[in-house]
Amino acid sequence: MNNFIFHSPTEFIFGKATEMQVGALAKKYSARKVMIVYGGGSVQRSGLLDKVKHSLLEAGILFCELGGVQPNPVDTKVYEGIDLCRREQADMMLAVGGGSVIDTAKAIAAGVPYDGDFWDFYIGKVQVTKALKVAVVLTIPAAGSEGSGNTVITKLDGLQKLSLRTSGILRPVFSIMNPELTYTLPAFQTACGIADMMAHIMERYFTNTKEVEIADRLCEGTLKAIISEAPKVMKEPRNYGARANLMWSGMIAHNGTCGVGCEEDWASHFLEHEVSAIYGVTHGAGLAVIFPAWMTWMVEHNVDKIAQYAIRVWDVPETGNKEAIALEGVSRLKAFLSSLGLPVMFRELGIEKPDIDRLVDSLHRNKGELVGNYVKLTRESTKEIYDLACGE
Amino acid sequence: MNNFIFHSPTEFIFGKATEMQVGALAKKYSARKVMIVYGGGSVQRSGLLDKVKHSLLEAGILFCELGGVQPNPVDTKVYEGIDLCRREQADMMLAVGGGSVIDTAKAIAAGVPYDGDFWDFYIGKVQVTKALKVAVVLTIPAAGSEGSGNTVITKLDGLQKLSLRTSGILRPVFSIMNPELTYTLPAFQTACGIADMMAHIMERYFTNTKEVEIADRLCEGTLKAIISEAPKVMKEPRNYGARANLMWSGMIAHNGTCGVGCEEDWASHFLEHEVSAIYGVTHGAGLAVIFPAWMTWMVEHNVDKIAQYAIRVWDVPETGNKEAIALEGVSRLKAFLSSLGLPVMFRELGIEKPDIDRLVDSLHRNKGELVGNYVKLTRESTKEIYDLACGE
Repeated sequence: MNNFIFHSPTEFIFGKATEMQVGALAKKYSARKVMIVYGGGSVQRSGLLDKVKHSLLEAGILFCELGGVQPNPVDTKVYEGIDLCRREQADMMLAVGGGSVIDTAKAIAAGVPYDGDFWDFYIGKVQVTKALKVAVVLTIPAAGSEGSGNTVITKLDGLQKLSLRTSGILRPVFSIMNPELTYTLPAFQTACGIADMMAHIMERYFTNTKEVEIADRLCEGTLKAIISEAPKVMKEPRNYGARANLMWSGMIAHNGTCGVGCEEDWASHFLEHEVSAIYGVTHGAGLAVIFPAWMTWMVEHNVDKIAQYAIRVWDVPETGNKEAIALEGVSRLKAFLSSLGLPVMFRELGIEKPDIDRLVDSLHRNKGELVGNYVKLTRESTKEIYDLACGE
Repeated sequence: MNNFIFHSPTEFIFGKATEMQVGALAKKYSARKVMIVYGGGSVQRSGLLDKVKHSLLEAGILFCELGGVQPNPVDTKVYEGIDLCRREQADMMLAVGGGSVIDTAKAIAAGVPYDGDFWDFYIGKVQVTKALKVAVVLTIPAAGSEGSGNTVITKLDGLQKLSLRTSGILRPVFSIMNPELTYTLPAFQTACGIADMMAHIMERYFTNTKEVEIADRLCEGTLKAIISEAPKVMKEPRNYGARANLMWSGMIAHNGTCGVGCEEDWASHFLEHEVSAIYGVTHGAGLAVIFPAWMTWMVEHNVDKIAQYAIRVWDVPETGNKEAIALEGVSRLKAFLSSLGLPVMFRELGIEKPDIDRLVDSLHRNKGELVGNYVKLTRESTKEIYDLACGE
């Protein structure tokens, strides 16, 4: 096990009707004026935005608004938010939405007190040392951004999709998580969220670090919970218990609980970021295509942890050779993702002939010549994985 | 799943040589003068105390000392610490040790800014609203106090052992966890720590709350990690990986990760507190006797979760009736505890003829007529459980 720091200071307020506490919580965390950040019309139509405003008013908290954040959130909205926030002198970002909204709010939070271009943080030119407070009312369990210090933004000019990981400074001070708010998510978006949270766990699980039994067991347990609850929410979107288990699993998947002391991988995420940057697909759907391809490739190159995953997560019997066990695990993962209505090859993602050379070029331009850790992937390897994602 | 708040703001610094960072961390958390709280001579003999002082000196942090904290820590030491801390005007408690030392430090931290008797907090007369900061250098993985807001103290006058649970105010601001510091723990103490951390998980796992799959899986996974690593440390006390996995499992067992959204039980802990208060036994050893007895009793009174535990944690085959499956699980737990050298009945604990009437009287005087939640235990029930703990 490697040395590590675990610091997840966010206060999570989980359960029914918890969004009514947002005003009191903003006050507890010393907000004077919050900037409410949200996406499209669903938070308006559902009445959630009104509830949030009402709660803030009751607590005597001022607010301003930034709507219109898109999936695969872009830098232009961040610049708009930074300008607005400075004009309005808001001191807390309140994200009401899912990962895209939260990630935009985090980027604004880091950008406001910084003199230069906020994009400097994403290209690693400077580190975030100061940021406004971020808080969350979560509506989509998927990205895990409600419990992480991370944010992913796409620069429209050049379609560069980059992630910024901070240890603590961008973690929300509080996150309100009411599973009822996820009842009306479209089935496809629910499924994409499930693929995303599973990927967050697997990026940490597939590691060469030895003696990480507790990390392994927490990863496997969370995956098993997701696998058990996912079919329930697909069948009954208003099943509170299943929604609740998935919502909390999505947080656990990404706040650092999984993967303590492990070198992490993240190659599949980087491979996918290129796909969603260029083709505009939903991140979770892209992951459902890329991750099984990555895993299939790994069976031939570093089979051990894939076999353990097959046995412990998918209950594949421990008979035959490791490769066969591992492949059966991958096959069960694909069948599971398909059963949720997710694509597991490019074609099903609506990309008949992906421009693999362009994907590979862009990936290695953004991430260097070697990508990932479980096996460090060269251009040749990433091309093979994109090829595998085309299916048979 | 019930509504819940999860808030574990402690910064955990985990791994080799991390105790050298204590000065820098105390500074980061704005300490001016810390009071180092410790137990017997082992932290002196091992040189740990000197390392801690050196690191504090280097960081320019003043300190004073309170040594001599005993296992099953008592109120008189807390009063001594409160006096010393007020005289010395320390502003942070630095516990260097295990649960007894940390719990004493927490009691002092709450007591110093309070005008009345600190015991008021433990009997529930007043709530803790203000406390000094607490920090930890952990040497014994067991109590989980390094990541919890809880503390247990025994009042010498009347031998009343009571716990105080706070949501956040007494959680350490940072906890340094170096598994190497646990190499020299005596085998019996290592084993008692293992029983204690398993009990912390099981107190949360045995619940009637429905639809808690993620909580269940996190509990089961952590138990499985402990069961896998425990025999390794008993055989090789200097096995870093196994020590590290156990140390982190002990934290996860008690910081709230396990059992989110569940009504918790805690009857076994309360049953045990009477035993250690009256007979002075080590808490973990007492739990190794009480918990299997509690579980055996539950097979006849609320079998479902015991059977699930047997299947998922102990891999008991799902054949035969639930009672038989559950009993086999209890039997495997007992065999496991015995294999670590722990007692599983009163006699093995050195108590030939426990005064069960006195235990029952004291328990219900301290905790009320009904104890626990999985089944609410009457005087009759707790007597039967103490009887079962006498073995055949």
